[in-house]
Amino acid sequence: MNFTLNILGTASALPTSERYSSAHVLDVHGRLLLIDCGEGTQMQMRRMGISFLKIDTVCLSHIHGDHIFGIFGLLSTMGMLGRTSVLTVFAPPAFRPVLDFFLKTFGEGLRFGIDLHELSCKEPEVVFRTRTIELLSFPLNHRIETYGFIIREKEPAYNVKKDSIAGYGLSLAEIGTLKRGEDVVRCSAEGTETISVAEAAYKPYVPRSYAYCSDTAPFSALSGWVRGVDLLYHEATYPEDMKDLAVKTFHSTVVDAAECALEAGVGKLVIGHYSSRFSDLSIFLEQARKVFPDTVLAHELDTVEIPLKKSGIR
Amino acid sequence: MNFTLNILGTASALPTSERYSSAHVLDVHGRLLLIDCGEGTQMQMRRMGISFLKIDTVCLSHIHGDHIFGIFGLLSTMGMLGRTSVLTVFAPPAFRPVLDFFLKTFGEGLRFGIDLHELSCKEPEVVFRTRTIELLSFPLNHRIETYGFIIREKEPAYNVKKDSIAGYGLSLAEIGTLKRGEDVVRCSAEGTETISVAEAAYKPYVPRSYAYCSDTAPFSALSGWVRGVDLLYHEATYPEDMKDLAVKTFHSTVVDAAECALEAGVGKLVIGHYSSRFSDLSIFLEQARKVFPDTVLAHELDTVEIPLKKSGIR
Repeated sequence: MNFTLNILGTASALPTSERYSSAHVLDVHGRLLLIDCGEGTQMQMRRMGISFLKIDTVCLSHIHGDHIFGIFGLLSTMGMLGRTSVLTVFAPPAFRPVLDFFLKTFGEGLRFGIDLHELSCKEPEVVFRTRTIELLSFPLNHRIETYGFIIREKEPAYNVKKDSIAGYGLSLAEIGTLKRGEDVVRCSAEGTETISVAEAAYKPYVPRSYAYCSDTAPFSALSGWVRGVDLLYHEATYPEDMKDLAVKTFHSTVVDAAECALEAGVGKLVIGHYSSRFSDLSIFLEQARKVFPDTVLAHELDTVEIPLKKSGIR
Repeated sequence: MNFTLNILGTASALPTSERYSSAHVLDVHGRLLLIDCGEGTQMQMRRMGISFLKIDTVCLSHIHGDHIFGIFGLLSTMGMLGRTSVLTVFAPPAFRPVLDFFLKTFGEGLRFGIDLHELSCKEPEVVFRTRTIELLSFPLNHRIETYGFIIREKEPAYNVKKDSIAGYGLSLAEIGTLKRGEDVVRCSAEGTETISVAEAAYKPYVPRSYAYCSDTAPFSALSGWVRGVDLLYHEATYPEDMKDLAVKTFHSTVVDAAECALEAGVGKLVIGHYSSRFSDLSIFLEQARKVFPDTVLAHELDTVEIPLKKSGIR
């Protein structure tokens, strides 16, 4: 039941000798989602031992080069490695011509389909769901159409307590009823007996969630949209004294990011997308922690684990 | 009077965690030529301390991704760094739509011109010259239209010996004559005096040369075209026992590369473009040196210097 963020790149527009462009891989229950794909993503994936063929979903926030210039190389490599399974891509509509150009010019021999879903929403919207997880997109406020993403576990089905099964002699049908969250009602000549979910079953875990806030100027709705996530990645291109530049370029300062985390009441904040002006990032961490203590700096090849949250009721 | 090859990437189609896609920077007298531009070129340039703005010429051998997928990021970065001087690009005609797509989609705000010269030749042809160097392109034999490059110093002007200037009391005009390689003929009442170039002047150095043989199957004309270069880079994707695969994919084995170097009588051979199957490259070096002893393996961030060759006649 993994829920792990792998950090591939933390640079903003200009990569440095140490920092790669934006890219993250979220491992949710062994399903790998690539979130943004800056230049060098495939090399960083190799360094982290992440399988190219296990990536089944790619989420692209916007089509600025530092978020997508690794996609041509990655798609080519997937093709050369013999991928045949469909790759699902969520991206703004402007990515369509980029993908079309790639396929026309470099797509010969690719034996897998690319299923592109064009994002378009005014507020958080579920764009993809499986039995256990959901992917949502939501708009950000950048110079071009840009989206953030939330990946969260769905409410799990109830587990039925072993001693309830034995004590009540529950049938398979009754266990199914409880798992769906419905009370079991037994009717007999002696009357009606109710076996309640609250008593006989429990949730195996509390759903975990991760939100990715790519390039964005701060805006009031954002903290509501990412409220209560366990882990928030928020871009923090500039320290606070460069607020003017952040405003001008539709980016966030580290304090903007930390205030969003505070207002949203998230579990942990991870910041990245640092301006190349800074080789020492201590000022970023210092400023963020004054506002939101549970902040960590994103670094290349780091992983941030969200541990399974048992519900505690058994 | 630098003549230095900087090696940025040595991978073939699939980069590895250690090897980047093809890219080299040749520093000729402080003029920087980028030769191929695989993904990650800009990061490797930063690591080698190579200025983005000093690159004035880009030579692209062919439009397979592992030779050009770094160009979008590099051009964007040059733009963001405020480049205004024209960038000259030599590439096969198929690069034109790639560049057009880049400019249309990602070129907003670029304040420098890109002067694209479409390559088209059947044998070596000078495509660019300055006062001191020449760039030639020549066709290779790959699956798509592909070119190699030769960069060489032109024959330098003669230097006039200091003791000749004093001894003969040479005038500025006479010095100019000797520098152009012409004998000085003095006519006077006493008769004719000839001051010969051979006696009064010398060549300050012997021109140096570098040839780049990108992806290619071996072919008979090639060694003649790169004859006598001081440094030959030749792709060597596979060791000899994978000759079948090399033939099938229009690549060279390490023995093909070494035989080319031997036939061409080059000074030194540097091989690269290694198949990702091999993490240990010792078999490449061993096989090459059996045929051509003065072979070195290309490694990321290596430099190979061609020292100035003084003519020895003073």
